Amino acid sequence: MDYKSSGVDIDAGHEVVRRIKRLARSTFTPGVLSDIGSFGGLFRLEPGRFADPVMVASADGVGTKLEVAFMANRHDTVGEDLVNHCVNDILVQGARPLFFLDYLATGRLAPDVAEQIVAGIARGCRANGCALLGGETAEMPGFYAAGEYDLAGFIVGAVDRERIINGSTLEPGDILIGVPSTGLHTNGYSLARRIVFNELGLRVDSMVPELGTTVGEALLAVHRSYLPVVEPLLNEPGLVRGLAHITGGGITDNLPRIFPAGVGARIDRRAWDVPALFQFLWKAGDVPIDDMYRSFNMGIGLIVACRPADADRVVMMLKHQGESPRIIGELIPGDRTVSYLG
Amino acid sequence: MDYKSSGVDIDAGHEVVRRIKRLARSTFTPGVLSDIGSFGGLFRLEPGRFADPVMVASADGVGTKLEVAFMANRHDTVGEDLVNHCVNDILVQGARPLFFLDYLATGRLAPDVAEQIVAGIARGCRANGCALLGGETAEMPGFYAAGEYDLAGFIVGAVDRERIINGSTLEPGDILIGVPSTGLHTNGYSLARRIVFNELGLRVDSMVPELGTTVGEALLAVHRSYLPVVEPLLNEPGLVRGLAHITGGGITDNLPRIFPAGVGARIDRRAWDVPALFQFLWKAGDVPIDDMYRSFNMGIGLIVACRPADADRVVMMLKHQGESPRIIGELIPGDRTVSYLG
Repeated sequence: MDYKSSGVDIDAGHEVVRRIKRLARSTFTPGVLSDIGSFGGLFRLEPGRFADPVMVASADGVGTKLEVAFMANRHDTVGEDLVNHCVNDILVQGARPLFFLDYLATGRLAPDVAEQIVAGIARGCRANGCALLGGETAEMPGFYAAGEYDLAGFIVGAVDRERIINGSTLEPGDILIGVPSTGLHTNGYSLARRIVFNELGLRVDSMVPELGTTVGEALLAVHRSYLPVVEPLLNEPGLVRGLAHITGGGITDNLPRIFPAGVGARIDRRAWDVPALFQFLWKAGDVPIDDMYRSFNMGIGLIVACRPADADRVVMMLKHQGESPRIIGELIPGDRTVSYLG
Repeated sequence: MDYKSSGVDIDAGHEVVRRIKRLARSTFTPGVLSDIGSFGGLFRLEPGRFADPVMVASADGVGTKLEVAFMANRHDTVGEDLVNHCVNDILVQGARPLFFLDYLATGRLAPDVAEQIVAGIARGCRANGCALLGGETAEMPGFYAAGEYDLAGFIVGAVDRERIINGSTLEPGDILIGVPSTGLHTNGYSLARRIVFNELGLRVDSMVPELGTTVGEALLAVHRSYLPVVEPLLNEPGLVRGLAHITGGGITDNLPRIFPAGVGARIDRRAWDVPALFQFLWKAGDVPIDDMYRSFNMGIGLIVACRPADADRVVMMLKHQGESPRIIGELIPGDRTVSYLG
């Protein structure tokens, strides 16, 4: 018995590594000191870029959005979802991305599929100025169903110590500004899939008139990166007092993560138009409204908190970036919870 | 329809996070500036610890060793496997670990199992002076079988730029010193499981007289960290010219990863005693010898390369740490391949 007959093809693995190397090199920034294939990836922060650099790191997965990618046999977008999710998670602490590593686990490695996945990761990395420094591609026979895989990502960025954003200065009266999402991003897919595929019996290629597109297109819309629109705000120290990335748990669970003790939020749900996709899921699934706001981003992917006197300026700066920001609420005395109007 | 009925239990997730927080805090080093639960984990390298720090990062999984953990219903060792694997992967470039993040994906979150897994990660982190800075715990209903999970890890360490070990100075004549492994570590499990469970029909609790223990105990032996025994060597600049971590692909594929062009290796297989577990698998599986050395570490988990004049000193220093190092071969002119004697 040899290794290949046990279900692991080391040569196919080498072929995947060769293709990944080419894609990864396309993302390299001046800080990268190693090539892909080393035991570890080497990255050197340019001296002088940060006065007192603090590293900010985060790990994420794509969740069951992957199931939609499997159904649609489309594998070039989930990597971008993953990178952007990670970029946003460190951006909300004020950090700029430095490098990214991926973990791709499959039952049997299909080099073409692996290449599509990593091509999406590389595209996301390039768009965010983030180097794809390494990763692990694991072939685990019998662990994943044929054609299925799991995908996780790890990001490291940096922020100057005195520019860290952690919400610690937030206080009642501060204004909450919502920035639009581009769809479900990477959260709520277990509920959404159950409604769309199990309850409604739709397929990925079913047209949904209310959405003006297919189920697959709507559900695979790429999780956007907020780096380009937030960067100008971060360049004005003190302007942004808090940033929340609205991921699993929705506004209800994510916004309070940045609150100091004694602070809560009141959100006016009438302040923005909930996009058609969320309204469709809400109606079709007969989901209680509180569950909607705890499962989905409901059209708001990022919340910026600032002083009342700065709100107009933040809104203007975001509009200048082509955004449609909305003032969606304010901070109130509270116990780190969100209450809703409307 | 609500979120819980779709298979995701946000409250169970919060309970897991609460337990994980306590475990993670037990690993915190002075560099950690954030608590678990922030969008990103914050880490500050103490100023002055490195003159010109280079970050070294690596991502890894546990592979199908997880299947053995499932069969044995033992979940507190795989986390330590993962941390040590990652620590070794950056150690071979000369780096000391700074922080670690994990990705744990399950079908349905069992808080007790998640806690066992993270307890193993935390134990591994503490032993290596590495902070568990964050992670992602993903509940993906229908994606993983009941009681199964996947686990990946991501590590960042640092090395002074002029102390980076990358094998670039290796040349023919350099001596290769092998340091013992503690079992299969985390590689070769697809082949090993097929031999042990499919061909031989053994169970995890079957006693194997040749091994003096059960199948489960033998296969779950923890992947060791080489940090404590290698650190004294690294403190003498120039002593170590190259380090290879023997993981998937065995000595055959891993040792050449550090070779410059024009260099190969000759390994004398008679130089060390292959541990009983590998001999058992070899015989029982009727595996070609070349596949054995390309699938398993065969008892050598780390290879240290040094100048001939330094070999005795390196061996002595390793023995002083309680190791049983063996001179297993030397570098020769070649094309980045390994040839075997014996």
